Amino acid sequence: MVKNEWGFSMYPLVPGHEVVGVVTEVGSKVQKYKIGDRVGVGCLVESCRNCQNCNDNLENYCSSYTLTYGAKSRDGSITYGGYSDSMVVDEHFVVRIPDELPLDAAAPLLCAGITVYSPLRYFGLDKPGLHVGVVGLGGLGHVAVKFAKAFGAKVTVISTSPHKKEEAIQHLGADSFLLSRDQDQMQDAKESLDGIIDTISAVHSLVPLIGLLKSHGKLVMVGAPDKPLELPVIPLLMGRKLIAGSAIGGLNETQEMIDFAAKHNVRPDIEVIPIDYVNTAMERLLKSDVKYRFVIDIGNTLKQTS
Amino acid sequence: MVKNEWGFSMYPLVPGHEVVGVVTEVGSKVQKYKIGDRVGVGCLVESCRNCQNCNDNLENYCSSYTLTYGAKSRDGSITYGGYSDSMVVDEHFVVRIPDELPLDAAAPLLCAGITVYSPLRYFGLDKPGLHVGVVGLGGLGHVAVKFAKAFGAKVTVISTSPHKKEEAIQHLGADSFLLSRDQDQMQDAKESLDGIIDTISAVHSLVPLIGLLKSHGKLVMVGAPDKPLELPVIPLLMGRKLIAGSAIGGLNETQEMIDFAAKHNVRPDIEVIPIDYVNTAMERLLKSDVKYRFVIDIGNTLKQTS
Repeated sequence: MVKNEWGFSMYPLVPGHEVVGVVTEVGSKVQKYKIGDRVGVGCLVESCRNCQNCNDNLENYCSSYTLTYGAKSRDGSITYGGYSDSMVVDEHFVVRIPDELPLDAAAPLLCAGITVYSPLRYFGLDKPGLHVGVVGLGGLGHVAVKFAKAFGAKVTVISTSPHKKEEAIQHLGADSFLLSRDQDQMQDAKESLDGIIDTISAVHSLVPLIGLLKSHGKLVMVGAPDKPLELPVIPLLMGRKLIAGSAIGGLNETQEMIDFAAKHNVRPDIEVIPIDYVNTAMERLLKSDVKYRFVIDIGNTLKQTS
Repeated sequence: MVKNEWGFSMYPLVPGHEVVGVVTEVGSKVQKYKIGDRVGVGCLVESCRNCQNCNDNLENYCSSYTLTYGAKSRDGSITYGGYSDSMVVDEHFVVRIPDELPLDAAAPLLCAGITVYSPLRYFGLDKPGLHVGVVGLGGLGHVAVKFAKAFGAKVTVISTSPHKKEEAIQHLGADSFLLSRDQDQMQDAKESLDGIIDTISAVHSLVPLIGLLKSHGKLVMVGAPDKPLELPVIPLLMGRKLIAGSAIGGLNETQEMIDFAAKHNVRPDIEVIPIDYVNTAMERLLKSDVKYRFVIDIGNTLKQTS
């Protein structure tokens, strides 16, 4: 969004849609929150509240939602995201952060977390004993590993980087690791996975991933490549496999995910930085030099509130 | 298969995997059938009977099934399909044709019928009131329209040929028709379908089809393009849509489909021909000059048995 790689950025643009904080003021009709509550805001701050998706608590698929930053809101103003020491937002789009979850660790759950949690649930990959693959070990991928493990899955990380093996297994608790360009490893793992969460936003080949799926297996894309991928149809047919997309989650499900993370000790790995480090952080992010999310302590207040 | 377009044909090759007939002889251990029973054989004549898919009655996804023609069977012999006046086959791979279903009309159900019935069921597109699209109006497509209507769906046929509109609506009972190259029609129908059965085997664009799906909609490919298609990921993400493949069905489900067709009066449209017309029929087939399946009356006996 900062570099307009998807083509719809509006400048000036202030990013940030994994926002946490403490309620400092409430409107007269607010019912769910009071001053002092620990809360978070994810990718959305408005939706139509009237369509089928909104009625089904799937505001994330409403065709006229308002993104938390870089979007035109319903009153015509532009949204300016979470790089701010205060924010005004409709309580419907606020989730509660349980006390046992540190605020800073909760932040990345509000986009990265729900982005991987929602498809694990919707596509039935949340059953104990399933074998789930996670492609890419970045902000999304590392949380996908943690949620899949928390659901009781056997988890395999699939990556192009051999040095991620130790990290995946020793540090994140994955059960196994596949180097995607090692044909022998990939061949040995053929038809072993019930589902895959693919977090890669770059153009990449789906054939090897489809090959890793068992019959009736599900490959869910949560990254957003800006160019089309090649889809081989016959490998899908032969095992009744599917490829799906999934984008964040509804507000109810986001609350459910945060509560699940609190209860099952799912904590994103973060590096807390001050706001004046943000440009360096952006450069490091492009080099994947972060494990795994930067969290900006905007007002240098995290120690007090976490 | 005749022209080896998929690259695995073995010659001499005798096609035919929508086979009907009457039992003339049974082995001593046969339990389900007796002489005189009206029966059919579809695409499969053997499977391992031991893997997870076989145990789940999904012999069609067994990795070592034997196709009814052009395949090496478990004893090493080659299978020679249904262009024959007799056939020996394991009773497990035989289905019963109910009396109310004419034998000739039952034949195309054994491949075309189950190929579209199975995904309508598995992907939940069999609920009354859903809106289902069918892409392509050939052997598979016309039966898909009939099954979807029998399930109680509203059915839209999507085709590149304007002359199929009248046929789809007047003759096959579809509710509406979309000319896929008419951008206005396609735009007006955006996000209107719960699911699509795509029967096209040629390379074609998926973007317009994905656009026709509602959120959470399902595009199921049952045709087998031999080259990869272009898969746009963002349109999948934005509506949690999926693209899947599906290939024929298991034996239990094939029997269920035949019984459903008999009960709900689903009859493929056929043109019955004698065997000496087969080469002409093949030429006409390539020009899509058949409504919608040729059925070869091998022994000129159909009148007696139907």
